[in-house]
Amino acid sequence: MAELHPKGIHGTVAEALGEGTDFAIRTATLDDPDCGLTEEVLEQTDVLFWWGHVGHHKVPDEVVERVHRHVLCGMGLVVLHSGHHSKIFKRLCGTCCHLTWHDEARERIFVTKPSHPIAAGIPAHFELPEEECYGEPFGIPEPDELVFLGWYNTGEVFRSGCCFRRDNGKIFYFQPGHETYDSYRIPEVRQILRNAARWAAPTYRVQELKAPQILALEEV
Amino acid sequence: MAELHPKGIHGTVAEALGEGTDFAIRTATLDDPDCGLTEEVLEQTDVLFWWGHVGHHKVPDEVVERVHRHVLCGMGLVVLHSGHHSKIFKRLCGTCCHLTWHDEARERIFVTKPSHPIAAGIPAHFELPEEECYGEPFGIPEPDELVFLGWYNTGEVFRSGCCFRRDNGKIFYFQPGHETYDSYRIPEVRQILRNAARWAAPTYRVQELKAPQILALEEV
Amino acid sequence: MAELHPKGIHGTVAEALGEGTDFAIRTATLDDPDCGLTEEVLEQTDVLFWWGHVGHHKVPDEVVERVHRHVLCGMGLVVLHSGHHSKIFKRLCGTCCHLTWHDEARERIFVTKPSHPIAAGIPAHFELPEEECYGEPFGIPEPDELVFLGWYNTGEVFRSGCCFRRDNGKIFYFQPGHETYDSYRIPEVRQILRNAARWAAPTYRVQELKAPQILALEEV
Amino acid sequence: MAELHPKGIHGTVAEALGEGTDFAIRTATLDDPDCGLTEEVLEQTDVLFWWGHVGHHKVPDEVVERVHRHVLCGMGLVVLHSGHHSKIFKRLCGTCCHLTWHDEARERIFVTKPSHPIAAGIPAHFELPEEECYGEPFGIPEPDELVFLGWYNTGEVFRSGCCFRRDNGKIFYFQPGHETYDSYRIPEVRQILRNAARWAAPTYRVQELKAPQILALEEV
Repeated sequence: MAELHPKGIHGTVAEALGEGTDFAIRTATLDDPDCGLTEEVLEQTDVLFWWGHVGHHKVPDEVVERVHRHVLCGMGLVVLHSGHHSKIFKRLCGTCCHLTWHDEARERIFVTKPSHPIAAGIPAHFELPEEECYGEPFGIPEPDELVFLGWYNTGEVFRSGCCFRRDNGKIFYFQPGHETYDSYRIPEVRQILRNAARWAAPTYRVQELKAPQILALEEV
Repeated sequence: MAELHPKGIHGTVAEALGEGTDFAIRTATLDDPDCGLTEEVLEQTDVLFWWGHVGHHKVPDEVVERVHRHVLCGMGLVVLHSGHHSKIFKRLCGTCCHLTWHDEARERIFVTKPSHPIAAGIPAHFELPEEECYGEPFGIPEPDELVFLGWYNTGEVFRSGCCFRRDNGKIFYFQPGHETYDSYRIPEVRQILRNAARWAAPTYRVQELKAPQILALEEV
Repeated sequence: MAELHPKGIHGTVAEALGEGTDFAIRTATLDDPDCGLTEEVLEQTDVLFWWGHVGHHKVPDEVVERVHRHVLCGMGLVVLHSGHHSKIFKRLCGTCCHLTWHDEARERIFVTKPSHPIAAGIPAHFELPEEECYGEPFGIPEPDELVFLGWYNTGEVFRSGCCFRRDNGKIFYFQPGHETYDSYRIPEVRQILRNAARWAAPTYRVQELKAPQILALEEV
Repeated sequence: MAELHPKGIHGTVAEALGEGTDFAIRTATLDDPDCGLTEEVLEQTDVLFWWGHVGHHKVPDEVVERVHRHVLCGMGLVVLHSGHHSKIFKRLCGTCCHLTWHDEARERIFVTKPSHPIAAGIPAHFELPEEECYGEPFGIPEPDELVFLGWYNTGEVFRSGCCFRRDNGKIFYFQPGHETYDSYRIPEVRQILRNAARWAAPTYRVQELKAPQILALEEV
């Protein structure tokens, strides 16, 4: 793993995202105070990419609460691979987010919606030579848009790319990215990550969501 | 309020549900140990009706957790009126569940999906002489099915009847039911509550949702 | 084909549906006057199963119009296999309904929604030893519910079981059933067909859909 | 009508769209050969706005077919007011597209999704002093996104702004625009039309949709 991700997997994702773009990228990890996700950092973040695996429980509830609030206010969120079980993704979905899984497979990802912005420039299908296999049933609400489906040579299938809107925030879940494989260096994966960043970027964002008492609009 | 709901609002809802049915009905309140929602009670419950208002914060998180788990496993949930801000509804939606509101209005509810089971026997529209006005925007995920829309003489409009599926559980949100009004004695409202109970009742329910490691299905 | 389907493929489907049920089943083919789908027949039909392949263009437009009207009024419709390109399915979807395809494959069907009535009694996955391969992208509107996904040993994936609601009618598309294979004798397929019949059966059906001029509901 | 729309209602819509933009706008009417919607014109059109009322049946089926094909290939379509009963909208929806209606009302339109691009710059609600009243039930498939709801002083409610995706094309239905009223000169309506043009503009468009026979992707 250290060989594959010399700067950590967050470094690999940052590298994948940055290639050929003018994105301003910064990273944050469990080791940073507040996981690096302070109020100030989140205010300055257009789209947060979330990768996590065995350390989900180490993310403090107040950090999850803060990220959740920012997503609902308009910040974009891209959840990667085993992030399906992160507190923040489960919080936004409201479901168990379970799936079936096993270790080694070859995956082929199919585009189900060629006109979706996250599929821009992606061929009808492409391969990941080595990935963890994630299989159905995937315990998510019906996605607002299903963009990718995954096929595995080991006999399984998965909704590998799913879009959700929650209040003002846009969320994209993407399957690839097990830590022992090199998926984030595959050109199509990199293109999808960059497309997702652009798709999830806020066009409307508020400081706070409110439930105001209003005056009646008509006299009666 | 005590005059309108001599047995508490839970008593009024129980009465509304029970009329002319063979439903087995029991009630639970904040005053009961564990809010009356123990593991044993929930196991025996097909559909839970949830009404709450100023006391949402008094429901312990572990009770919410328990109810949430039972809904995902297959128990039905009908959320009434100010229950839009209950911990359990927000937990299942993943959104803020905010809305705009004011005190006094007359509401007319329209059926948008005449063939939906929850609209069975309901006319194209009917009136609630007095209701609290709930207005848009309503901070929910796009409902799986929108069954009712509400019009208010005070000038507002609201998605008054919304269906959601979350894992094995079916959830119905229904707007009427402010504690100072008598909506749960209106025949169409009673019919909708009974229809909702039948619609949300589990046809498939499990003890536990799992994320199993599986064996590869194909040799490779 | 004649060996596999001695009573025609309509006979095979009828047999599959009938097993162990008290359904009243009748069949209709291109050779019947009006394709056997007269006004009278459709009025008496709860759920119509549609299988067609090279003869889609032989179904007269007025028959398609009649079936379409009955579906919108509440009749259920189950579209099988190459029926994806039938006039009636394209008419209800509004899209091209294209897909990619090739001849010989082994298919494994996965349940994505274990609690859906059409998946009742179906294991997490099951196999079709021989099927035509249908692959993504499948040119349909986002299904109201996705119930099954198909995996093929030849490397493709497909949304094999999709639910749509159109006005009062419920529509289920199901992938298996190429005429040179024996899929309709597989127990799980038969179960799915029977489940689909029960799911799509009308609970609300009208003689005619209308766009009435109404009187204003309020004096202003 | 001639006073309100000196250049025809198509002229009024063109004027509404053009204000303060660099859109290249042209119009087409029933009086033009091929309704002005030739292959060449459609190829050059990013987004087609459709207004029609009593003349829907005068649009030849081959013109509808051509527009339908271009929408599925990626051209945007904005359907206005009584265009709900146009051949092209019914073709794309697959439903009856019926509604209830009466002549004179005041309408208030509410934003249900403040972060949707079509709602950009639109206040929480705004008024149309005179409009035709369109009421529920509206016979459309569940919209992919519901952006606006309409309230009428005459007591009705309507899903006034609905988004649909069909293959590569984006479709927006918007309620206002009866020919005897002046809704297309209201600033918020103009803003919505311009937002809709930008939202529906193709980011991916093909010459032709295909259902290709492919080679198996894996050797078996």
